[in-house]
Amino acid sequence: MIYDLIVIGGGPGGYNACEKAAAGGLKVLLFEQRNVGGVCLNEGCIPTKTFLYSAKLADGANHGAKYGVYANGVTVKHEEVVARKDKVVKQLTGGIRAALKGHGVEIVEATAHIEKKSAEGYNVSAAGKTYTAKRLLIAAGSEAIVPPIPGVKEQYAAGFCMTNREILDMKEVPEKLVVIGGGVIGLEMASYFNSVGSKVTVVEMLNKIGGPIDSEISKLLQKNYEKKGVTFNLGCRVTAVEPGKVVFEKDGKTESVAADKVLLSIGRRAASKDLGLENLGIAMDRAAVITDEHMQTNMPGVYACGDINGKSMLAHTAYREGEVAVNNMLGIRDKMHYNAIPGVIYTNPEVGTVGETEETAKAKGIDYVAKTITMRYAGRYVAENEGGDGILKIIVDKKWNKLIGVHMITNYASEIIYGCCTMIEKGITIDEIKKVVFPHPTVCEAIREAIFML
Amino acid sequence: MIYDLIVIGGGPGGYNACEKAAAGGLKVLLFEQRNVGGVCLNEGCIPTKTFLYSAKLADGANHGAKYGVYANGVTVKHEEVVARKDKVVKQLTGGIRAALKGHGVEIVEATAHIEKKSAEGYNVSAAGKTYTAKRLLIAAGSEAIVPPIPGVKEQYAAGFCMTNREILDMKEVPEKLVVIGGGVIGLEMASYFNSVGSKVTVVEMLNKIGGPIDSEISKLLQKNYEKKGVTFNLGCRVTAVEPGKVVFEKDGKTESVAADKVLLSIGRRAASKDLGLENLGIAMDRAAVITDEHMQTNMPGVYACGDINGKSMLAHTAYREGEVAVNNMLGIRDKMHYNAIPGVIYTNPEVGTVGETEETAKAKGIDYVAKTITMRYAGRYVAENEGGDGILKIIVDKKWNKLIGVHMITNYASEIIYGCCTMIEKGITIDEIKKVVFPHPTVCEAIREAIFML
Repeated sequence: MIYDLIVIGGGPGGYNACEKAAAGGLKVLLFEQRNVGGVCLNEGCIPTKTFLYSAKLADGANHGAKYGVYANGVTVKHEEVVARKDKVVKQLTGGIRAALKGHGVEIVEATAHIEKKSAEGYNVSAAGKTYTAKRLLIAAGSEAIVPPIPGVKEQYAAGFCMTNREILDMKEVPEKLVVIGGGVIGLEMASYFNSVGSKVTVVEMLNKIGGPIDSEISKLLQKNYEKKGVTFNLGCRVTAVEPGKVVFEKDGKTESVAADKVLLSIGRRAASKDLGLENLGIAMDRAAVITDEHMQTNMPGVYACGDINGKSMLAHTAYREGEVAVNNMLGIRDKMHYNAIPGVIYTNPEVGTVGETEETAKAKGIDYVAKTITMRYAGRYVAENEGGDGILKIIVDKKWNKLIGVHMITNYASEIIYGCCTMIEKGITIDEIKKVVFPHPTVCEAIREAIFML
Repeated sequence: MIYDLIVIGGGPGGYNACEKAAAGGLKVLLFEQRNVGGVCLNEGCIPTKTFLYSAKLADGANHGAKYGVYANGVTVKHEEVVARKDKVVKQLTGGIRAALKGHGVEIVEATAHIEKKSAEGYNVSAAGKTYTAKRLLIAAGSEAIVPPIPGVKEQYAAGFCMTNREILDMKEVPEKLVVIGGGVIGLEMASYFNSVGSKVTVVEMLNKIGGPIDSEISKLLQKNYEKKGVTFNLGCRVTAVEPGKVVFEKDGKTESVAADKVLLSIGRRAASKDLGLENLGIAMDRAAVITDEHMQTNMPGVYACGDINGKSMLAHTAYREGEVAVNNMLGIRDKMHYNAIPGVIYTNPEVGTVGETEETAKAKGIDYVAKTITMRYAGRYVAENEGGDGILKIIVDKKWNKLIGVHMITNYASEIIYGCCTMIEKGITIDEIKKVVFPHPTVCEAIREAIFML
């Protein structure tokens, strides 16, 4: 039979697209070589959130005295946290599997390889069989970069170095954990292992943590974690990983830090290598598949969504990209834009961010005004954060009087930021936002405060 | 001198209006007879949130085992919680006082009485002096209803019965607390005292708790608190309060429940009695001042905002009403509407609600469609709520394809609901909401799920 659509990769981009395409009447076949849910569900977003919730409970119990709450002998049984993570992942991937089945999506659990374009469509082989579809959606995701640093390959094989995949299944809490790379994944794992008792050191090549987040927020996050006992070595290039230690260059000098385990979290690369994309002549930008605003590649009928196109590498971007691709397949007008995509770091406090930072607004020559306020303007923040130093920053396009960026470091940032995405996505003006009634007392009210203080 | 504006009452409606009016160039005088910040800051929203945050930490420590977190001997030192509450209130009221001063608002700390309309404006007396302004804003708030039930007056005087005011200063945790009235205030206090060890019984006249909230959510909230050990006596009319007990009628029979303390939380009434409103002939609906969509009374130049007009009795409604009043004074077109005002119950789990319920939509004859989903569609909810039974309900106007109501019982509901207020206030269509990228994994994603499942 000839399918309407073959989807390669069952992560957030792929499985969501399968459901939407099937709901739209297409006959859909999905290839997944590991587990449905992809990195996000199996070894990323979801597992880390179960870890971090346990850490948050432990933090709360440990630091309750400021709020009149006392607990003795607070302990985290890491093996139970890991077991619960496995249970949650199983439950959620089971749900996705059931939803796909419910939509009549066929699943082949094997590695797919694109063979060629034929008269009937696109031919894809897997486990010795060949399948054909009128359209392809490449959603094969990404993989952790294992950098070509002396010793890393060997120590990864030996289990001393780990990526996001292995660290989530590690049964013991290492006494000393070194995190190479201070981006989102590195910081979230540093946060968890700090809470459960590891001595954590972060080694980062750049001079700030958190990747592209606002510099002031980056500094505050670092300060918060330094207080909790995490050591940051910024502007440091790792030169070797040896048994029991990580060697790096700092200000031209060679230093090293002892480690029981090492997390490699320097970034991710589109997993495009063995897909057979070259058989269709798909245009690439290094490892990434080039897509247009309809998520189409240079080949008609061949789309790509999620990490494979290298644009944003976030599960929620993949969701939406998959929907845009499917809508275009179904003849529904839809375009992808990237100006209102949120980013969250689930540390404690959390960081939530969307849209332009001052840095990017400046670089784009936007005539903007920025307003930064302390979170202490929000009564609930004061009620719940004794000694808290959170801030909120809004960036407004002066020409259109519209919000173009919001950045915050505070509890609940993860759950607050979507409202700002809505405001930016819909181009709601500052005057209109002033008329929105925010519930009181909440942390999110700080947004309203900042708007009125412009 | 003749002021541009006299504001009577320094709660959220009044103090915010003072700042906005002063920022708009008006010469403003504020009368406050107790403390700036009003009920909200001094004996309502903010103090209760400090209590409830301590309770949340204790709950987390007590129930951490499900998440691999163990703590021994978790205790809440109630007197420290009260002391911290006082500190937070002091800090926040200090902030408001400073902001008012910064805006050049004069404050007279005395009870104001409206005398008459004169040629120069409106005359208001306080502490033996008379002040005159071209405009008045009545923001005198509300007071807890002390019901005319036999024994209540005496037991209130004796300290056995309390309102929201007294309970927040109570130094000991009562062994047995009876809460008369299962609305927001009653439930929040029931929640706190349940967490810190009281045996709590709620006696409510209606057949549901939570006042006007969605019935299904009301039932779930009740079920959650029954599991925690709170007893609910619904459909019960209290007939007497006697030393050590509350007597009520249930299904025609007289019953009673023993109590060490009793909270009266049956509702609030506009505090209009001694203001001298009759001297201006202000039109009233019982205790409430009647206002139009510009927050103006029947007298030109006399406005009212907040609980005094009896419309919504929420701090955030008062804020916005005050802004509408001031905008109209300043000649800026603005109208108050009440269709997108959030309501929150800060229990654990929280309830967040905005707009029409099925009940109100039906009553208004709106052609709507409702979709209810389990919160377990949100991965983060599953990660953080072992055994959680939260739900999300959305109500959509079929004619306009727009969201008109959102109701949820889940952690973070308080911080999530404002985004739904934005969608309803701005009339964003369902198709537009589908294009908003929600961060993953979050609890708020359930909104997006529900939208796609319509």
